[in-house]
Amino acid sequence: MDFDLASSTDVLARTPATLQALLADLPEPWIRGREGPDTFNPFDVVGHLIDGEETDWIPRARIILARGPDPRFEPYDRFRHRARNARRSLGELLGEFAGLRAGNLDLLRSWKLTEAELALTGIHPTFGPVTLRQLFAAWVVHDLGHVAQVTRVMAKQYRDAVGPWVPFLPVLMDRVSP
Amino acid sequence: MDFDLASSTDVLARTPATLQALLADLPEPWIRGREGPDTFNPFDVVGHLIDGEETDWIPRARIILARGPDPRFEPYDRFRHRARNARRSLGELLGEFAGLRAGNLDLLRSWKLTEAELALTGIHPTFGPVTLRQLFAAWVVHDLGHVAQVTRVMAKQYRDAVGPWVPFLPVLMDRVSP
Repeated sequence: MDFDLASSTDVLARTPATLQALLADLPEPWIRGREGPDTFNPFDVVGHLIDGEETDWIPRARIILARGPDPRFEPYDRFRHRARNARRSLGELLGEFAGLRAGNLDLLRSWKLTEAELALTGIHPTFGPVTLRQLFAAWVVHDLGHVAQVTRVMAKQYRDAVGPWVPFLPVLMDRVSP
Repeated sequence: MDFDLASSTDVLARTPATLQALLADLPEPWIRGREGPDTFNPFDVVGHLIDGEETDWIPRARIILARGPDPRFEPYDRFRHRARNARRSLGELLGEFAGLRAGNLDLLRSWKLTEAELALTGIHPTFGPVTLRQLFAAWVVHDLGHVAQVTRVMAKQYRDAVGPWVPFLPVLMDRVSP
């Protein structure tokens, strides 16, 4: 599928409500269960998405759009949320994410980006030149991947509870080595 | 995590709103894109979940609770939805799923099941004896697995659009042979 900015913005706008529907007021074991050591539980995922709003997608888009001599992105800290949110509740984080996302999408829409601007490039610290279009496509895929992660990790909390059903529930076998 | 009926019912009650947030009024290419031949797109998943409400989870619970001499489940038709929903819209199916799910959970709550009832068994056509508790746990995992599938399949529609980001978006590599 070709990248489309309007429908990408539409998909990005849905993530806060999706996570709210899945997670708000859910009992703690569902929120804190993981699928392996050093992996994200649903609480971590919401914190990680907040980090993305504050330090990743829109800040990188600004670097590209500034058209400076060295459009190199700051490296992204995948574990910033651990210290930041240690004493926060999931309800707070869900509200914070929704506010940040809404503000970022308002900003994105206000830019009224042209096809020429979407073809501008920045420099990713690991893999080099990427276009603004690729950055926004990656933002969409990143969101969807983390919603998939939340539901996969929740499903795995019942791996033993389903008994002989395991082989018929393939989500339980995904990411055997997460 | 041990099976808990109240929190399982809570998780099951969230799926219609989660799918509504993800999918309602989304442009057709996002709804119809697949991850491989003979796999479900998001439209198919909603139809498959409707089939589950009508022919799988609660009908099988009734067979167990009837305590008859042969508590064998009917085999489940994974492709019933294809003919059933050929001319329906996703909006209709989302509404239908929400109504069926709400009714089934009202019924489930009205049964006020005891631990002894949750330990009753039925016979699965493929893998034999299973408890009512395992059936309900499988219902929860089945829901979560299909929400994960919807978001994974949507993410894969942008596999080419993300360009060099592919290796950093692991959801794009899940189910390489779906």
